[in-house]
Amino acid sequence: MTETPLFQIDVQISFGHCDAAGIVFYPNFFRWFDRCFHTFLLERHGGHAALCRQLGARGIGLMHADADFRSPGLDGDLFTLDLGPIDWANRSLTVPYTGRIDDRVLVEGYETRGIFAEREGRLTAAPTDQLRALIEGVDHG
Amino acid sequence: MTETPLFQIDVQISFGHCDAAGIVFYPNFFRWFDRCFHTFLLERHGGHAALCRQLGARGIGLMHADADFRSPGLDGDLFTLDLGPIDWANRSLTVPYTGRIDDRVLVEGYETRGIFAEREGRLTAAPTDQLRALIEGVDHG
Amino acid sequence: MTETPLFQIDVQISFGHCDAAGIVFYPNFFRWFDRCFHTFLLERHGGHAALCRQLGARGIGLMHADADFRSPGLDGDLFTLDLGPIDWANRSLTVPYTGRIDDRVLVEGYETRGIFAEREGRLTAAPTDQLRALIEGVDHG
Amino acid sequence: MTETPLFQIDVQISFGHCDAAGIVFYPNFFRWFDRCFHTFLLERHGGHAALCRQLGARGIGLMHADADFRSPGLDGDLFTLDLGPIDWANRSLTVPYTGRIDDRVLVEGYETRGIFAEREGRLTAAPTDQLRALIEGVDHG
Repeated sequence: MTETPLFQIDVQISFGHCDAAGIVFYPNFFRWFDRCFHTFLLERHGGHAALCRQLGARGIGLMHADADFRSPGLDGDLFTLDLGPIDWANRSLTVPYTGRIDDRVLVEGYETRGIFAEREGRLTAAPTDQLRALIEGVDHG
Repeated sequence: MTETPLFQIDVQISFGHCDAAGIVFYPNFFRWFDRCFHTFLLERHGGHAALCRQLGARGIGLMHADADFRSPGLDGDLFTLDLGPIDWANRSLTVPYTGRIDDRVLVEGYETRGIFAEREGRLTAAPTDQLRALIEGVDHG
Repeated sequence: MTETPLFQIDVQISFGHCDAAGIVFYPNFFRWFDRCFHTFLLERHGGHAALCRQLGARGIGLMHADADFRSPGLDGDLFTLDLGPIDWANRSLTVPYTGRIDDRVLVEGYETRGIFAEREGRLTAAPTDQLRALIEGVDHG
Repeated sequence: MTETPLFQIDVQISFGHCDAAGIVFYPNFFRWFDRCFHTFLLERHGGHAALCRQLGARGIGLMHADADFRSPGLDGDLFTLDLGPIDWANRSLTVPYTGRIDDRVLVEGYETRGIFAEREGRLTAAPTDQLRALIEGVDHG
């Protein structure tokens, strides 16, 4: 990414994250994407549960996720995952991730999330403008 | 176990269940204990959520878990997990598990669970007699 | 998918697959994609480890994965996951997945995998023709 | 524990660690026990893989694990896990863990591990004296 990330977490890759081929089992990268997003909400914006109460939402959940796996991660590697900048649409937000060990890219991917709220008995994706204002107000304001 | 189990699930051990040593990563055995218990509740007693509503409980959750690991499980093995018989105390139930591949025992363990309910603003372990009657009424009656 | 799937697994969705919003935690869908692929290899083609020995490969690993999440899965749902048909390229194969509860689609996604083998000291994606012949010989021949 | 722990990790409890009851899904505590042990080996003793090569072992694997769950962990909690001191037997080591959020204990448990090595074609638990000397030489010497 040429743009500055919004947030970053480190993950110490451990024995139990690896599969029988001795490399990180790929669904763990998606667990780390999700963890990075929730840690960003926690450290910058009061956390997912408090934001959901504020937005009248049930959750800021997944519509799409993808990842390109560039090189393997091994037990003992220190993995750094960058989040952002977020791309906002009316009823979804797309969060890019890039994960590295030192300068070597392991994974690049995206999560597209909606702000799911009950409206007339159904869960639907609510407008993102209020969340965008909260996040951009703090992080870009 | 010399006594007859109450319930049984099969798990097809897969690549992603195994760690860098090529054998089942041990926390998966606890995930399978939990899954076995919840599948037992689902197939025999209407499921955990419905039972909790009936009992006025938040969850039938863990107080203790342990396991002895007798031999390893590998990618491709078909694992069979037996549950029960349940040992009932006033405010807890202990659920034994034995997991095998054919005749070879991989794991023997226990979960001790409580019926957690809110009473005067705190979560406490409620009496087990109502759940016991439901389970023994169906399974031993 | 309008085309006939190659393979199918069932997953009994359990309490522990769900997150604090009470729906399947999304990385589990990728674990089930991977499990479906490995179970397909096991039941139809002798399993991943035996195939890798035959192909001189270290693993049939991930280059890309993505998923669209259409509707949520809940504790107690019986989830059916279809695999295939596989789309073959020279040095990768793309495996489509569609997951349903009855007629309701929960997830549609893809895994792109390579046959990773050591050549001159580096892991590279080997040609897919031998694996393709094995799989198409059995499944389409 | 009244004795000084050998090692400690922090875990930022996240949304995806929690189950449909909104609290940490209990097998995660065992994943964190295992992660704590492997991080201890990595940071103090060169890591599990290097130690295994030095000891001629396949893995320092599990014979037994148990845990008492004292109080729940929630999304957003910062969890601190203490390891040790290790209790050494001839062919096993028992590693105690205590996990807290501030002063509140969430979990207390043990892992009993063996140094599994191939001897005459079978995996058996090797004597622990060499590993004990390595660990006690560095940490208590």
